Amino acid sequence: MDKLSELLPGKTSTAPEDILCYGFDASGLEAPPSAVVWPHDVGDVIKVIKYASTKGIPVIPRGAGTGMTGGAVPSRGAIILSMEKMNRIIEIDEKNLNVLVEPGVVNGKLQRELQRHRLFYPPDPASMNFCTIGGNVAENAGGARAVKYGVTKDYVLGLEAVLPDGRLINTGVKTAKGVVGYDLTSLLVGSEGTLAVITKIRLKVLPLPQDVITLMVLFKELEQSGIAVTQIISEGIIPRTLEFLDRETIKAVEHYKPIGLPEDIDALLLIELDGAPSAITIDAEKVSDICGRLGGEVIMAENEIAREKLWEARRAISPALFRISPTKINEDIVVPRTRLPEMLGVLKGLSESTGIRIVNFGHAGDGNIHVNLMVDKNNKDEYAKALKLVGDIFSATLELGGTISGEHGVGLTKKDYITMEIQPDELQLMKKIKAVFDPENILNPGKIFP
Amino acid sequence: MDKLSELLPGKTSTAPEDILCYGFDASGLEAPPSAVVWPHDVGDVIKVIKYASTKGIPVIPRGAGTGMTGGAVPSRGAIILSMEKMNRIIEIDEKNLNVLVEPGVVNGKLQRELQRHRLFYPPDPASMNFCTIGGNVAENAGGARAVKYGVTKDYVLGLEAVLPDGRLINTGVKTAKGVVGYDLTSLLVGSEGTLAVITKIRLKVLPLPQDVITLMVLFKELEQSGIAVTQIISEGIIPRTLEFLDRETIKAVEHYKPIGLPEDIDALLLIELDGAPSAITIDAEKVSDICGRLGGEVIMAENEIAREKLWEARRAISPALFRISPTKINEDIVVPRTRLPEMLGVLKGLSESTGIRIVNFGHAGDGNIHVNLMVDKNNKDEYAKALKLVGDIFSATLELGGTISGEHGVGLTKKDYITMEIQPDELQLMKKIKAVFDPENILNPGKIFP
Repeated sequence: MDKLSELLPGKTSTAPEDILCYGFDASGLEAPPSAVVWPHDVGDVIKVIKYASTKGIPVIPRGAGTGMTGGAVPSRGAIILSMEKMNRIIEIDEKNLNVLVEPGVVNGKLQRELQRHRLFYPPDPASMNFCTIGGNVAENAGGARAVKYGVTKDYVLGLEAVLPDGRLINTGVKTAKGVVGYDLTSLLVGSEGTLAVITKIRLKVLPLPQDVITLMVLFKELEQSGIAVTQIISEGIIPRTLEFLDRETIKAVEHYKPIGLPEDIDALLLIELDGAPSAITIDAEKVSDICGRLGGEVIMAENEIAREKLWEARRAISPALFRISPTKINEDIVVPRTRLPEMLGVLKGLSESTGIRIVNFGHAGDGNIHVNLMVDKNNKDEYAKALKLVGDIFSATLELGGTISGEHGVGLTKKDYITMEIQPDELQLMKKIKAVFDPENILNPGKIFP
Repeated sequence: MDKLSELLPGKTSTAPEDILCYGFDASGLEAPPSAVVWPHDVGDVIKVIKYASTKGIPVIPRGAGTGMTGGAVPSRGAIILSMEKMNRIIEIDEKNLNVLVEPGVVNGKLQRELQRHRLFYPPDPASMNFCTIGGNVAENAGGARAVKYGVTKDYVLGLEAVLPDGRLINTGVKTAKGVVGYDLTSLLVGSEGTLAVITKIRLKVLPLPQDVITLMVLFKELEQSGIAVTQIISEGIIPRTLEFLDRETIKAVEHYKPIGLPEDIDALLLIELDGAPSAITIDAEKVSDICGRLGGEVIMAENEIAREKLWEARRAISPALFRISPTKINEDIVVPRTRLPEMLGVLKGLSESTGIRIVNFGHAGDGNIHVNLMVDKNNKDEYAKALKLVGDIFSATLELGGTISGEHGVGLTKKDYITMEIQPDELQLMKKIKAVFDPENILNPGKIFP
């Protein structure tokens, strides 16, 4: 690795602490890289890629390591290409409603910067204060606002990227529309760092919504919360968030950070409406009526402080769950919105029959459930049982017309399950596309495909 | 071709009138197919594809032939696969906000059917009363509402399609989200019938907007209309349509069907707002103020009849232009929204310097201009000059940060220009992707690539 540090002096490390720090991500999986490189610009990226491809060394592009499926975990001997120094917001084009950023810019930082220009970038993964736009693009990240505003791919207009042989490509457009040739942009979004290293991203943005109202609704019965979700949307109201927490999640949150939630409720909905004040006031009343009629207790927040208070419970979930058990197996299944109560029933049954504690929360508006199996990796029997349970959960999800991942991607943790959802012919097409971009299998090898 | 009619009795024709009718599309280009087949189901599609691929005969999937770039024009000896009989709306899932349709369903028919369920499918190409959803998906069609709601690709959740060797694939999901494997769905959308034959389409739909207000604004000066567009959007208002007609278009419309538009105006904006009545009433007042301050004369319509009257001018454009000259070369460039007045200035200059009449209208909100060169194909000198002019228009478009096609695709008419926008490395990736799907080059050969 001497050559690499000569090529990129001061931007390369093989120090043990760096090897340790960049060897894992939020999946909990880990493997040591052979070196970590922090490129400062696209020229540095090209240098690393050319060096690695000549020597046949794998390269793993990495955002902030907040991915849940091991997408940024190195294969043994790989170079970690950490994009964190390429973190500039290059251009905010207010009038044409788009921005140009480097991949390392943190999502939350971009959100705040845009807010000062009265602009809005909707995708808001729970990790938004740490995760990077580059990582979001690589994983096609979602977030709480996807129910109204869609996911990352709905905002990527164009990309600059480095191919695994060092050539630089540009995809997409700077304009609102463009249909010239195949959609390489959408192909790179969600490709989990396996096709090219993204070095610039042009994103569509929106005018900042005029106002927001937040409602928290407590339900004694899970079934009723599911009916509420369907009725709200049937009413023609698309809230910008429609989050739910189940009983186990509420208990975990109260145990970690008591915020006064009753522990005898079965479900909590966190509903946020945005738009013109006159319109969302009427919608908030309709939502309150619907939930009230179904036995829900409604708490409304109309200012920023009250809103933050209501979001406290949602934000506390992640640290709260880390307290419950040593290992958390975190899945992100999606079912058609109306099948959510049924899927939660299946999960309850599976938890009871296996004795494994399952904690569920997520994006009810999308039918997207974060299913958390609370176990101990060192308890080998329990862990093996949990991994089998994951397969059973995926089977049930697919039977209900769902998908095994709504936000996290496949990475390492789901690659052994991918054939449950993707059939051989489709998988073969994907593998051939991988070979078109990366014939030597240099970029993030061993991910996605079984 | 005897074998084909035996394989699909009653669904095949080689009759001269069919060969004639299915030999051209709205581009005006034509070439006779060897046969026309009307599959009734996916089984029929597979039969045709297998027959053709065994014999090495090209297959051209065709919607309603409303495409503007020759995408459905056969190469000599090809089989036209006309999808018009596969026109069922299979499922309307009101609660999960999606529909499953066959490719031959007409866009306008789907719109009307959905309206009865209080649902809304935004993409509305000008040809919506004839064009099919399959064609829309193949071309990634836009429409007037794209400024607020996006284009076809933003609504395609999943596809069933037949590969050129007869294998059936399924891509995407039935759910609101899904990130398992590469995005084959987006790759097929806009691929102009060159990668696979689409046989089923699952589309996302929205609740029907509560109300609509339409405004027509007449401007004495083009410049002022451009400033109005930018100011409306800077105000945080995204109208659902923001259409413009230039002076030449207005004159053509008045000549064809007098509706009382003054001929001394330089630009007309057709602005439509949708949403909650209280919110859009306020927005309509703001839009009126902005336009009024810039010297625009505002006419407002708040009911369906008045609205239809305002849309008359927009709807009359296409037939009106056909009256002006024997040949219309129709381009659909896009520039960043704020560069629209500049681009229109360039077009005016090019028209004056070449003596070729240019008529412009389009989607001002997207920066998407339908540029029409009014010529006579039989006047060889003029026609050659016009084709050269197209190249100059594209150069100017790209210099302003634009794209040579916002809605129509590349097909035959733009393939000689594609390298002006797409660089060799990106084009090579696209060609290799074509080879992954269609190694024998059976599906719609000779399109897109130069």
